[in-house]
Amino acid sequence: MVRTDIRVIYGDTDQMGIAYYANYLRWFEVGRNEFIRASGLRYRDFEERFSLRLPVVEAQVSYRTPARYDDVLTVETTIEDVKRASAKFVYRIVRGGEVVATGHTLHACVDLDGRIRRMPQELLARLGGGGEGAREPAGE
Amino acid sequence: MVRTDIRVIYGDTDQMGIAYYANYLRWFEVGRNEFIRASGLRYRDFEERFSLRLPVVEAQVSYRTPARYDDVLTVETTIEDVKRASAKFVYRIVRGGEVVATGHTLHACVDLDGRIRRMPQELLARLGGGGEGAREPAGE
Amino acid sequence: MVRTDIRVIYGDTDQMGIAYYANYLRWFEVGRNEFIRASGLRYRDFEERFSLRLPVVEAQVSYRTPARYDDVLTVETTIEDVKRASAKFVYRIVRGGEVVATGHTLHACVDLDGRIRRMPQELLARLGGGGEGAREPAGE
Amino acid sequence: MVRTDIRVIYGDTDQMGIAYYANYLRWFEVGRNEFIRASGLRYRDFEERFSLRLPVVEAQVSYRTPARYDDVLTVETTIEDVKRASAKFVYRIVRGGEVVATGHTLHACVDLDGRIRRMPQELLARLGGGGEGAREPAGE
Repeated sequence: MVRTDIRVIYGDTDQMGIAYYANYLRWFEVGRNEFIRASGLRYRDFEERFSLRLPVVEAQVSYRTPARYDDVLTVETTIEDVKRASAKFVYRIVRGGEVVATGHTLHACVDLDGRIRRMPQELLARLGGGGEGAREPAGE
Repeated sequence: MVRTDIRVIYGDTDQMGIAYYANYLRWFEVGRNEFIRASGLRYRDFEERFSLRLPVVEAQVSYRTPARYDDVLTVETTIEDVKRASAKFVYRIVRGGEVVATGHTLHACVDLDGRIRRMPQELLARLGGGGEGAREPAGE
Repeated sequence: MVRTDIRVIYGDTDQMGIAYYANYLRWFEVGRNEFIRASGLRYRDFEERFSLRLPVVEAQVSYRTPARYDDVLTVETTIEDVKRASAKFVYRIVRGGEVVATGHTLHACVDLDGRIRRMPQELLARLGGGGEGAREPAGE
Repeated sequence: MVRTDIRVIYGDTDQMGIAYYANYLRWFEVGRNEFIRASGLRYRDFEERFSLRLPVVEAQVSYRTPARYDDVLTVETTIEDVKRASAKFVYRIVRGGEVVATGHTLHACVDLDGRIRRMPQELLARLGGGGEGAREPAGE
């Protein structure tokens, strides 16, 4: 599991005085980027080295308690399922000991023309076939 | 069911050349606003007349095919479940005859202090207890 | 001058209860897209037909009075200066008879490798050398 | 001068493969927040303790060289002018030794009803009317 901190800015809030619901998907991306980086890759590498991409096929968020301006949130990211041609990331956003939101994103592995591709063995291994970073449960 | 058109701008795209996944939640909001307006209310009324809010408790999106710059998308919004203190909106985003994405949002009805409240009878009636706008199935 | 309507959504607001200042640059883009479309082109054409792009070199916004949730704003866009390798768009955002914001963006004309290029004659003509759409003053 | 780091995410880019121009105003806000925090305040304090706000009256950005996905950018923020009822922040966004963008924002000091107000002496002192906070070099 990989932890990344985020600070809520004014631009993230809405007139209800809380963070707008679409921003959580941006924060999930931040967590995902850092998860991939922690596994020894960068998302950039997917595109540059492997000529692959991981577009989002599904996203889901459960909003438990509002995030507010200037809060420091921690995105806890893990990977739950790495299959031949897809990967599922699981997220928990916490503020101190409190769970602010949970959710997941499901990604397909496609080539630059958008065709479904198997993930290269190196990716599978790094993302969760055997890496330590990935094996921990999400703890939800 | 209520239809609203949206045009994808450059700022909605990412370097994959497709609309970034968080923007769909913004588009769902656009559809939701217009659904509520079509029922004879405005979301503003929730706040001003009823001193209520409908914060999002859960959101889910299935991305079927990418949306691209300058596409005109139609958000088809319906309401599936209006309960005493919650409402579920269902969305389908289409481009011509093609389904781009589907999803839903679940909302709680809360007062200005964030406490769960029953929806006033007028809201229930307008949002789906008996209004024509709301009764049609989503057609998914 | 080309007019385009925009409706402010919840996601555009911040906890001050007004539209967040960065969104105005998105709305300027909407106006710019429609200005270019009205001249018989689409911004897409720059990229696809001419292999050119118009990245923003400078942007400026004067915020006169706040825009609020559910407001319908009109972006009035005109082009002030079309030079060999640059173009300046001027914007006025109004709500009814009231000016909400004014501003401009300055764009360079570059090829796909980012090198400054002359605008093709057709573009110059369409964008303001002689097109009707472009000749009107901004009316400020 | 206060320095804050930002990492460009996928959601910040557009199909040109570079950071979308409106995001720079978000990054200016991040710099501004940290500048104010470094002066011993938080922007929150304006609202909570002083019942004041600092809405943006003008914003300007010069884009020098594109920012790209996964770049770590540093926002260098300073305050140039603190007057009785306004403040001007100046920003420079750099990547390593290279200047990516520069710009400024001008803010009015208003009360919760939107009326122009003098800044309290404490604010003036802290923000730079005589305080060290603004005149000092980065000193973080």
